[in-house]
Amino acid sequence: MARSTFMFSSCPSVLNCAAVVGKKEGEGPLGDCFDIVENDTKFGQDTWEKAESTMQLMAVKKAIEKSGITANDVNIIFAGDLLNQSIGSTYGLRDLGIPFVGLYGACSTMAESLCLCSIFVANNVIDIGACVTSSHFCSAERQFRFPLEYGGQRTPTAQWTVTGSGSCVVSKCNKAPYIRGVTIGKIVDMGVTDINNMGGAMAPAAADTIKQFFDDTSLTPSDFDLILTGDLGYVGRELLLDILKKDGIDITTRHNDCGIMMFDRVKQDVHAGGSGCGCGASVLCGYVIPKMIKGELNNVLFIATGALMSPTSNQQGESIPGIAHLVYLSTQKEN
Amino acid sequence: MARSTFMFSSCPSVLNCAAVVGKKEGEGPLGDCFDIVENDTKFGQDTWEKAESTMQLMAVKKAIEKSGITANDVNIIFAGDLLNQSIGSTYGLRDLGIPFVGLYGACSTMAESLCLCSIFVANNVIDIGACVTSSHFCSAERQFRFPLEYGGQRTPTAQWTVTGSGSCVVSKCNKAPYIRGVTIGKIVDMGVTDINNMGGAMAPAAADTIKQFFDDTSLTPSDFDLILTGDLGYVGRELLLDILKKDGIDITTRHNDCGIMMFDRVKQDVHAGGSGCGCGASVLCGYVIPKMIKGELNNVLFIATGALMSPTSNQQGESIPGIAHLVYLSTQKEN
Repeated sequence: MARSTFMFSSCPSVLNCAAVVGKKEGEGPLGDCFDIVENDTKFGQDTWEKAESTMQLMAVKKAIEKSGITANDVNIIFAGDLLNQSIGSTYGLRDLGIPFVGLYGACSTMAESLCLCSIFVANNVIDIGACVTSSHFCSAERQFRFPLEYGGQRTPTAQWTVTGSGSCVVSKCNKAPYIRGVTIGKIVDMGVTDINNMGGAMAPAAADTIKQFFDDTSLTPSDFDLILTGDLGYVGRELLLDILKKDGIDITTRHNDCGIMMFDRVKQDVHAGGSGCGCGASVLCGYVIPKMIKGELNNVLFIATGALMSPTSNQQGESIPGIAHLVYLSTQKEN
Repeated sequence: MARSTFMFSSCPSVLNCAAVVGKKEGEGPLGDCFDIVENDTKFGQDTWEKAESTMQLMAVKKAIEKSGITANDVNIIFAGDLLNQSIGSTYGLRDLGIPFVGLYGACSTMAESLCLCSIFVANNVIDIGACVTSSHFCSAERQFRFPLEYGGQRTPTAQWTVTGSGSCVVSKCNKAPYIRGVTIGKIVDMGVTDINNMGGAMAPAAADTIKQFFDDTSLTPSDFDLILTGDLGYVGRELLLDILKKDGIDITTRHNDCGIMMFDRVKQDVHAGGSGCGCGASVLCGYVIPKMIKGELNNVLFIATGALMSPTSNQQGESIPGIAHLVYLSTQKEN
């Protein structure tokens, strides 16, 4: 039988975390939250892909530093990104010398890495694990859509790929926030084929995973301060709320989305909101977890969603399969 | 500290496995071993990418059937492939309804998926997990090198991407072969930039992981019938043996490579041997594990290596980072 939800009797903690973002993200409503805002799109490198690798390494190093440990203390690193063959991670992290578990979950990667890492730590497979993911507007746009120089017109449902990276260090250390449990998602494909409506394509997967989590636990939306999706944006959010309501689950008053929080919709011209692996990762690591450490948020569900298509599958007329993984964070170890 | 090797006190078994390959692989020396040899390059689909997805699903279904279970019995599936955004796996497996952990380890994916799955099973996180990966000559060539129609000349060090898929079902079931332990590899980059010499680029990673395993355990090469790398081919094998000898480890008489075993070098014109995620996967699942079930092989190290580059990183002048993950299989639960 499918095993989706894993609740921990001995909870790992997020020891600490860090978020690195680009200029536009730094100018948004959460600008002050991020550890590093880099104004150079290329992060001092000669290509955008190398910039993304550099950004990812910066996030890992900062998270490790804030955790009061060194890279040598990390047992395993779980990482992935949106670039073909995950070169953001493989080139970014190659010099660390840490055993490497490469993931592909598209924009669900922050949650996927936290799911695996916390399962490893909770079961004493490892003591300290690190998680990281990233996205970069320029490397993603040219890979998935058009060359930037083309200046293509964006549709109203299009989202803006966040230039950002987030990294967490996970360990059993008796310190909030705790990872109380995780839900590993299934692939859900409702037949959406519009590559400019990722939020719509991913919302059914988010709904499926959230419903699964509530089915598998005795918890309800009112147990949470915040139910936070990764990058559904404005269009995907509405769909998510609608689908869940049809299943008798109302998360309206608790829900927010990192793609909505990241940018000022009016001033920053991002259409349906932010997207990308780095969107959920940098909001989680820059805003949510720091607020939990301060005790300003207590119970959070973080659900990152990924669109598991490629430009090739899209050109071949395929629909867009989605996936969502969930991480249950709390300042309390037990209810 | 890096944690690389995980030995299991309560060993998972490979319940069963299956291999599906294409026509050329079926004509090779191992042709009779594979569960399914499909003569249609497109596996009845209209594109090579869809063919690869179909092949991967066939391998999973066959492995599940041979294990005497149904897809509903599988708790989690661990999968990935070489295609951009892993569409071989995401489209191939989307209808299964099994919680999905997407991986990217390039040609190391069969070992990576077995590492994670066996850690989950050994620690009672799940009862039954499935692993799968694939590669397809036609989808890989056009993505990584040239359009097939171009008929590009191949260099002597070039390898031939195997059209094949392998899938394992892992569970604690008191049945050989057992997975006694695993080693999760580090990224190793020795500066090789020749995209037509993948074996050379990956050999240092294989050496690093094999050395790590022997360092972490009290075992020696003579404890094994077979030390099997995934797809180093003829060039990579020589390099691997040389590097290990410099470290005082001689595996010459025990070593073989799936890329060498897959094709007849003289008759099949594959230059330096086979390669691809599906190479190691189909040899492991079509030849090695069945031989272990029959008791004809008893102690095997399977080390699959991945080249973690992309055409983009290569065009940007980057070298090729490699990674290798190791799985220790035995017909005995204990020494």
